[in-house]
Amino acid sequence: MTRLLVINPNISDSVTALIEAEARRSAAPGTELTMLTAPFGVAYIETRFEALIGAYATAQLAAEHHTGHDAVVIAAFGDPGLGGLREVLPVPVLGLTESALASACLLGHRFSIIAISQRIQAWYREVVAANGLSGRLASIRALNRPLASIGSVQDDHQAALLALCESAVDDDGAEVIVLAGAPLAGLARTLRGRLPVPVVDGVSSAVRHAESMVALAPGKAVRGSFAPPPVKPNQGLPDGIARLLAGPPPARS
Amino acid sequence: MTRLLVINPNISDSVTALIEAEARRSAAPGTELTMLTAPFGVAYIETRFEALIGAYATAQLAAEHHTGHDAVVIAAFGDPGLGGLREVLPVPVLGLTESALASACLLGHRFSIIAISQRIQAWYREVVAANGLSGRLASIRALNRPLASIGSVQDDHQAALLALCESAVDDDGAEVIVLAGAPLAGLARTLRGRLPVPVVDGVSSAVRHAESMVALAPGKAVRGSFAPPPVKPNQGLPDGIARLLAGPPPARS
Amino acid sequence: MTRLLVINPNISDSVTALIEAEARRSAAPGTELTMLTAPFGVAYIETRFEALIGAYATAQLAAEHHTGHDAVVIAAFGDPGLGGLREVLPVPVLGLTESALASACLLGHRFSIIAISQRIQAWYREVVAANGLSGRLASIRALNRPLASIGSVQDDHQAALLALCESAVDDDGAEVIVLAGAPLAGLARTLRGRLPVPVVDGVSSAVRHAESMVALAPGKAVRGSFAPPPVKPNQGLPDGIARLLAGPPPARS
Amino acid sequence: MTRLLVINPNISDSVTALIEAEARRSAAPGTELTMLTAPFGVAYIETRFEALIGAYATAQLAAEHHTGHDAVVIAAFGDPGLGGLREVLPVPVLGLTESALASACLLGHRFSIIAISQRIQAWYREVVAANGLSGRLASIRALNRPLASIGSVQDDHQAALLALCESAVDDDGAEVIVLAGAPLAGLARTLRGRLPVPVVDGVSSAVRHAESMVALAPGKAVRGSFAPPPVKPNQGLPDGIARLLAGPPPARS
Amino acid sequence: MTRLLVINPNISDSVTALIEAEARRSAAPGTELTMLTAPFGVAYIETRFEALIGAYATAQLAAEHHTGHDAVVIAAFGDPGLGGLREVLPVPVLGLTESALASACLLGHRFSIIAISQRIQAWYREVVAANGLSGRLASIRALNRPLASIGSVQDDHQAALLALCESAVDDDGAEVIVLAGAPLAGLARTLRGRLPVPVVDGVSSAVRHAESMVALAPGKAVRGSFAPPPVKPNQGLPDGIARLLAGPPPARS
Amino acid sequence: MTRLLVINPNISDSVTALIEAEARRSAAPGTELTMLTAPFGVAYIETRFEALIGAYATAQLAAEHHTGHDAVVIAAFGDPGLGGLREVLPVPVLGLTESALASACLLGHRFSIIAISQRIQAWYREVVAANGLSGRLASIRALNRPLASIGSVQDDHQAALLALCESAVDDDGAEVIVLAGAPLAGLARTLRGRLPVPVVDGVSSAVRHAESMVALAPGKAVRGSFAPPPVKPNQGLPDGIARLLAGPPPARS
Repeated sequence: MTRLLVINPNISDSVTALIEAEARRSAAPGTELTMLTAPFGVAYIETRFEALIGAYATAQLAAEHHTGHDAVVIAAFGDPGLGGLREVLPVPVLGLTESALASACLLGHRFSIIAISQRIQAWYREVVAANGLSGRLASIRALNRPLASIGSVQDDHQAALLALCESAVDDDGAEVIVLAGAPLAGLARTLRGRLPVPVVDGVSSAVRHAESMVALAPGKAVRGSFAPPPVKPNQGLPDGIARLLAGPPPARS
Repeated sequence: MTRLLVINPNISDSVTALIEAEARRSAAPGTELTMLTAPFGVAYIETRFEALIGAYATAQLAAEHHTGHDAVVIAAFGDPGLGGLREVLPVPVLGLTESALASACLLGHRFSIIAISQRIQAWYREVVAANGLSGRLASIRALNRPLASIGSVQDDHQAALLALCESAVDDDGAEVIVLAGAPLAGLARTLRGRLPVPVVDGVSSAVRHAESMVALAPGKAVRGSFAPPPVKPNQGLPDGIARLLAGPPPARS
Repeated sequence: MTRLLVINPNISDSVTALIEAEARRSAAPGTELTMLTAPFGVAYIETRFEALIGAYATAQLAAEHHTGHDAVVIAAFGDPGLGGLREVLPVPVLGLTESALASACLLGHRFSIIAISQRIQAWYREVVAANGLSGRLASIRALNRPLASIGSVQDDHQAALLALCESAVDDDGAEVIVLAGAPLAGLARTLRGRLPVPVVDGVSSAVRHAESMVALAPGKAVRGSFAPPPVKPNQGLPDGIARLLAGPPPARS
Repeated sequence: MTRLLVINPNISDSVTALIEAEARRSAAPGTELTMLTAPFGVAYIETRFEALIGAYATAQLAAEHHTGHDAVVIAAFGDPGLGGLREVLPVPVLGLTESALASACLLGHRFSIIAISQRIQAWYREVVAANGLSGRLASIRALNRPLASIGSVQDDHQAALLALCESAVDDDGAEVIVLAGAPLAGLARTLRGRLPVPVVDGVSSAVRHAESMVALAPGKAVRGSFAPPPVKPNQGLPDGIARLLAGPPPARS
Repeated sequence: MTRLLVINPNISDSVTALIEAEARRSAAPGTELTMLTAPFGVAYIETRFEALIGAYATAQLAAEHHTGHDAVVIAAFGDPGLGGLREVLPVPVLGLTESALASACLLGHRFSIIAISQRIQAWYREVVAANGLSGRLASIRALNRPLASIGSVQDDHQAALLALCESAVDDDGAEVIVLAGAPLAGLARTLRGRLPVPVVDGVSSAVRHAESMVALAPGKAVRGSFAPPPVKPNQGLPDGIARLLAGPPPARS
Repeated sequence: MTRLLVINPNISDSVTALIEAEARRSAAPGTELTMLTAPFGVAYIETRFEALIGAYATAQLAAEHHTGHDAVVIAAFGDPGLGGLREVLPVPVLGLTESALASACLLGHRFSIIAISQRIQAWYREVVAANGLSGRLASIRALNRPLASIGSVQDDHQAALLALCESAVDDDGAEVIVLAGAPLAGLARTLRGRLPVPVVDGVSSAVRHAESMVALAPGKAVRGSFAPPPVKPNQGLPDGIARLLAGPPPARS
């Protein structure tokens, strides 16, 4: 049995519900999910500042709740807090973006990302670059209209999203489509068979890859830059984070 | 149930046995494996020319035998024939290198590759570059002594292989170790807990990721550069390959 | 008169004192400094997780205290929170790393970074990459001994630091030396004339460049990815941050 | 006297005739040409899978027929089998793509490639990347209509090809035009003086550069990754290939 | 007091006047400017060949006149002669391009360059690449009409220049605008508040950064590639240049 | 008959003699050479400033003397003035570096450059980068002892140069060796058969490639960035240069 802690770095319960539904559909038999929603932050992350807030909220939740789980999934595109949490947690930590990109890279060479807002594109571009994958990014294309409700984006704008996918393939040379952002969780499943190239999303990819990283049991870093931070004075931190910083985490069983 | 076709592009039955053993240990319950060994070629691939031969042998085997399988694994580091087979086969095709790199990218930012011969390093470097991941490659390090038997490399040279891993972490800044090449299949499992950073190998990664790609059902490209090649005159080809080129493959059910 | 808000993202008052001393020596006549130390966090940032915490502490301080200042300096190497704060604050925001790199780029083509701990190097490497300047990075070299006191690193280890600089020039081809990290604030001034190439540090560079960005008055982004984030629901945030997110900041006078 | 072995990796005799005509026009006095057409394969290579087949066919022909020649030219754009054959053959081996790119690089900084089909573009893009020259690629532009006959493309579509060249210069910033693919052999000569920038093609470039590589006599690698592959067990290979793998080739006189 | 030598590498006195006006507006109190115009060369530099001439003219002027100055500014976009003069002069040398790019990098991640002629774009692109900043270049956009007078470009074409800026932000994702070329000196000031993102120009940036480099006193290279060239035989050179090559420059006081 | 103008951008007649000897040995029957030595400049170029001077000297010579020649060779490594002269001259212009790199790229993937002085390495590194070929550069290695006579470097230091080549192959992974700099002209010929990988030099490569560019007759750019500079006011220039700038060159016959 694999126990996954899935954290929505945003405050939107409706998006957590979308994530959970797709995560349950994607998980292997025997995988158990714990879902958490950020207690503070914004409705959905489109910018670097919002990601900064989401990273801290995610860190708090992960620090408090990771015990008893085999892996942690950060369920917002952009992977807020991913690198940091990979250092301090004793179990694998995966983000939606890196997971979707890993899937895309196994299906073709160049991928396009389809996003829900114009504003979010620069942030995604920087995240792809931080993943070292700019050379495989065919394009980022995004909806350019106001979103009435973040929980129903994929229903409200399905035709427009399909059109963006088509353009990515025909005009940008995309060989794989990444549907980006937790609000689009499950859309890949809905669009299956209606797109000319393989399509992946972050939630299903993250759940499957988290299961794989648990199964492969690659071990936790104890040296190098993903080992836990050196112990040093700290103050004023939430209890969970303070505990993580208090010393090397116990060895994984 | 997931049915995987695992092709060893080399002629070494002893290496096929290593691959099979690790593939069975890694596979999820309910995954079935068909193992094939190249009927022509060399004992193990270290060079571009040997990869060229292995690619053609793999293409022939895959063309003849893919029917009835849900995915194909090309079980030699360097992934000979991968891009081409991804075009023509109706199911996902995965290589050991890209699969190990996908795992490594989910565990840290910079990885080192540990290889079994000096000669093989340039070829691996080019494959990493072709995957667009040179920016995350910390180093490639390799054994520098003659290999008595390709089937027992990991036993004969375990101490030397461990020392290469340590150097990669301490001197090159590796955050993840990739044990490369089918002859090292299973070594990651053996070394677990003895290395300072996470360690992955190609066979177990490819089996897990192949299962994931089947489960995610992303769809087969019908447009773009991974669609089947345009139908055109051909001659003199093995029957299986000729059939693949004769027209679009049937839609995946 | 230029009023700069200088925020130490760490909790060390001794380092804030070092920063302030060098900032005052570097500032133009008529520049006024407000110094702040993070109320929560760690003694000094060496890792991604510590940077995540420092970013949030910096965001809170900047949100509460930026009013009445012409620019904000984030006074930790690694620039925690920089991109995000650049979106939400109505005035220029500068980090030590980007400022030192800007100086270095005006003095030569390839620079080396000298750092105070082995662990910090991977984090710095990623920050240089995020600045798009990996191609000009000759090397990162770091002290490899325990630091008795973070406030006296530059005195305790001056000979070792000088030796690192020499190696960077002679072995790595550095054309400029960047002394990295707030604990080394002022060391560039101390070493002046004893190094074979130009040497810069983050604090003096950030103060000067902050003054320049105020003087050049380039304007605040109101479109594109550095405009303030779109207004949307949020909850549970510190008052200052909530105010920043409540709507577009007033136009700069 | 220089003796060149020119291999068409495709089965089209009409294209071999085009190649031969342009090769003879381009060759220096005293150069002798041996022309070969692949005995198996496809009419023309547009995809990775077709290139895989063409590489093996080329390898067989080169192995059987290289004796008595001073250099080998692989006469399909994309250079199928080039890296491998460069390892095993005792004489220089050149491809159309790398040869045309070498010419282009001596005439300007950024080049565009004009191709005969939409599908072929992704494959060309990957070949340019494998040559390490993506940074100099202004664009790839291609015909977008069905080809009635591969042997008469350049006559049937001359106006469209000219228009593509004009767009590459005016819209993409091309400083040199590369007419790509053996079916366009000779077109550069036909268009001479009608294009605003220098124009090169693969066949004439390969013939000239092959002559140069023979004249410069740089020597064959006996160490490093282009030395012949280490001798090791093999089976089931065509005689010529088996002979090449049987041991180090005789020293070039 | 800071004394800056500002050299216009072109022969246009009207442009020197524009440069001087903006330099005086930008300079800190107490900065003194010496303005020089190239005695030979062309009206304005748009091409590599013109830059070659401008570099030599600049070198002659700098060699003759640098004594008594604290820094030198090469006041043409493209920075002709910059790298060479940085080697031989005992004081900091700054160019308009590198200075504007340094400012842009402190204000956002991706910048666009707005230029005065179509022809100049390739040259600018190469200069950005030589600065190692291609990864942050969103686009270069340029006027496409004949320039009646180089001294009045910014007045004659203000609406067109504004439109180019808007396109760079909206279509290319520019986060900062760089107004390029000495003929546009001062335009950033004129357009202030009328553009959606921060805007910088070369002259004001170079003056401010030159002052900063003087204030930071980083030291002159005496080893590495920016040390003065090794003394060796020379002949036929202008006196000033010959003096510079005659031996190591005196230490800076 | 092909008439090549070969310009030594340095003042050393002894080096011109070396260049001429190797050029004559390399040239095809029927190629005629005109040799010129810079009337002003330095003994040999090791730095950016010396290259700036050499570029101007080369421009003057080329402007005065190109008439009656079919191509121009700039015979100093680093190719001073190459881009500019390619714009203004009506015939192909080739440099030693780009020519040697073109040869190297046709013989292997990664090359090392062997140079005659430590100081020259940074300059070469920048030239390789400007050629867009940093990704294929295995290393630059250089003599580290004083040169008694620039004309006899290759005789005085042959053993040391051989050792550098060996290190480049064994330690750096070089697949081709480039012997750099006109003072090493002819050494590739001398070392033939004594190195484990192919070896090329600049003079022989440039002569051969110049002949090829004449034979291929690709045409002179009349649009784009290598067209002659727009006609505009100029003053104070040498007659030859002024003539080049006075208008478009006559069409090549």
